[in-house]
Amino acid sequence: MNNLIVQKFGGTSIANTDRFQAVADLVVDSINSGTNVAVVVSAMAGETQRLINLAKELQESPDPREYDALVSSGEQVSAALLAIALKERNFLSKSYTAHQLGLVTDNSHGRARINSIDTSALEKDIELGVVPVITGFQGVNSSGDITTLGRGGSDTTAVALAVALKADECQIYTDVDGVYTTDPNVYKKAKKIEKICFEEMLELSSLGAKVLQIRSVEFASKYEMPIRVLSSFDSSGGTLITKEENSLESAIISGITCTSDDSKIVLRDVPDTPGIAAKILSPVSEAGIEIDVIVQNVGNDKLTDFTFTVKSDQSEMAVDILKTLIESLGGGEIELVKEISKVSVVGVGMKSHAGVAARMFKALADKKINIDMISTSEIKISVVVSKEKAEEAVIALHDEFELEN
Amino acid sequence: MNNLIVQKFGGTSIANTDRFQAVADLVVDSINSGTNVAVVVSAMAGETQRLINLAKELQESPDPREYDALVSSGEQVSAALLAIALKERNFLSKSYTAHQLGLVTDNSHGRARINSIDTSALEKDIELGVVPVITGFQGVNSSGDITTLGRGGSDTTAVALAVALKADECQIYTDVDGVYTTDPNVYKKAKKIEKICFEEMLELSSLGAKVLQIRSVEFASKYEMPIRVLSSFDSSGGTLITKEENSLESAIISGITCTSDDSKIVLRDVPDTPGIAAKILSPVSEAGIEIDVIVQNVGNDKLTDFTFTVKSDQSEMAVDILKTLIESLGGGEIELVKEISKVSVVGVGMKSHAGVAARMFKALADKKINIDMISTSEIKISVVVSKEKAEEAVIALHDEFELEN
Repeated sequence: MNNLIVQKFGGTSIANTDRFQAVADLVVDSINSGTNVAVVVSAMAGETQRLINLAKELQESPDPREYDALVSSGEQVSAALLAIALKERNFLSKSYTAHQLGLVTDNSHGRARINSIDTSALEKDIELGVVPVITGFQGVNSSGDITTLGRGGSDTTAVALAVALKADECQIYTDVDGVYTTDPNVYKKAKKIEKICFEEMLELSSLGAKVLQIRSVEFASKYEMPIRVLSSFDSSGGTLITKEENSLESAIISGITCTSDDSKIVLRDVPDTPGIAAKILSPVSEAGIEIDVIVQNVGNDKLTDFTFTVKSDQSEMAVDILKTLIESLGGGEIELVKEISKVSVVGVGMKSHAGVAARMFKALADKKINIDMISTSEIKISVVVSKEKAEEAVIALHDEFELEN
Repeated sequence: MNNLIVQKFGGTSIANTDRFQAVADLVVDSINSGTNVAVVVSAMAGETQRLINLAKELQESPDPREYDALVSSGEQVSAALLAIALKERNFLSKSYTAHQLGLVTDNSHGRARINSIDTSALEKDIELGVVPVITGFQGVNSSGDITTLGRGGSDTTAVALAVALKADECQIYTDVDGVYTTDPNVYKKAKKIEKICFEEMLELSSLGAKVLQIRSVEFASKYEMPIRVLSSFDSSGGTLITKEENSLESAIISGITCTSDDSKIVLRDVPDTPGIAAKILSPVSEAGIEIDVIVQNVGNDKLTDFTFTVKSDQSEMAVDILKTLIESLGGGEIELVKEISKVSVVGVGMKSHAGVAARMFKALADKKINIDMISTSEIKISVVVSKEKAEEAVIALHDEFELEN
């Protein structure tokens, strides 16, 4: 539909009835500015957790079908309350559950994927001046059972709905006002990014994760649906996430991320035989351990050093697996280094600017920050440093690439 | 279906997860005794009120469609939680919303009437050994909007479902263990009634109102579905409400009720013209005031006295209406007497036993209790007495008809 935006409000934006009033006012402002609006809501802050706690008191791993039926009630409450607040403002409004809408997913309870959305009722509503308020996070499978999309799934609902309705934009309202060049808690000079492309946002997922669900960005990227991240608590513009434009002015670097709670596992002096990487990594990854950066150094005497990083809470498990494995690999030493951090610079601009890596490494060297591992992709360069140096590294790089300007 | 009972659990029976555990055990006990069970649940105690309060913070009279969408979420939570508790006990179980079940009502939000129930899914479930747990209180209209049946509507859901499934019995579990011969707070010799017929239960509605919704008794009476009222907190048998049996042993009187907060309005010396009753009562009743007992005394000189009772909180309003009316009636005096009470004895037995009224009046006279008004129906005799004498009247009649035995 032309002249339509989808607005999604998360749990903190509707934590209490005062917040519902504020959100209703925001929706009304958008309508009064001449736009049609369809709204997607999450459960009120704390509500989903309250329901999960009840379920877990009854069953340690609650039945997936019933778990979804249970927690999806939170969004039903929010949708009805926002429709009531809009009615009070003399706007026509109707709440929709996934069932009523016809938002059909696959059968994977707790992490369902959207298969189709029937927009006919919504389109009719919008033509009649009705503001539809749709429950995020949930769907129904082909048997009519309620499913949920997983934590943060309301963002995905909003983007999917925007795509289905051919909306102009999907606005994700939350309690922060956008995506920043780096975590403002790490460097106070961090600056809000006004515009960023999907690919950069995906690489900056750790910065974005505080703001919106990365899966919704993948979805938006696929269908080129612009997402605007906004705060429902102030009106300071937000960040627009959209497709890459060939603009000369685009920044070389868009943002800098920094992980915490990472560990590095080094296998030293393992025989450098074909397929050694798979032999090491497959058993680890099959155990459900997420492997991040991987580096293999070519060694001497047909021996090699093999290094990878994992989340610290899974590092001991990874080491245990490697210990059972090391003999069959033909020997080697296992070393576990906790307290490391991955610092990444991200930007589509680096594709057309040579020397970004060199500038990065020099900036770190100037601060005497030792680089443990390096990993690069087309629009991202990551270095692994000791955790105690991580914040210093972020600041040095933020200054080097002049992101505060 | 043969060998099937419907069990309904109210809000106090499932006020917290410990209570869900207790209720799940009750259901399991029934199944283990060889019966098939379909369960209907209300919202957890306090939950519906919590949701109503939220809505009223946003709109004084919340939009009816959205109000129903909102409050119906409480039963969805309960149904999922009970299904989870049953799963934990290794029973197959599935929660059903009205939408999923196909419980279709008319369009009257907040006080919808059930039009039809699709039992096919439930019958299939029960044949497969699945315990279905159905949300009480709610339905969907022909447009797919959620409707609710009004306060206490879960009892009606349970009875309607029992009728639709051709169950053997509908069990209403609550926090009291049955219907008593009179309010135990009024007379401690009040005795639990083991068996009572529908007609008596309807006339004893004020006793029953603490136990189950009277509309569900009307429904059960129409379809002759036995209702058993039970406590989910103990296992002391309860009260069976069923169709009248021609049994010689049936008690003359089943129970005694007593109202409070009633007022009496007397119109003295109004002209005794045809249609005077309608002229007096229609404007009162059109103002939404509920009129209970009505007595007209034939007077002298073509003047008559006309007396009726209303709830005390509506009595001033009724008097105001009559004041504007009195001249057009041709004159008369209006008197308002607050603090009166209606005491009723109810029993199908009185149909075949002459002299019940005489015994009643004599018992009251012996205690020097003055009778203000008398009203009789086929299975009920009501007297209006001063409120201060009401409890004494109940005790005298309870003794007279030997209800403690």
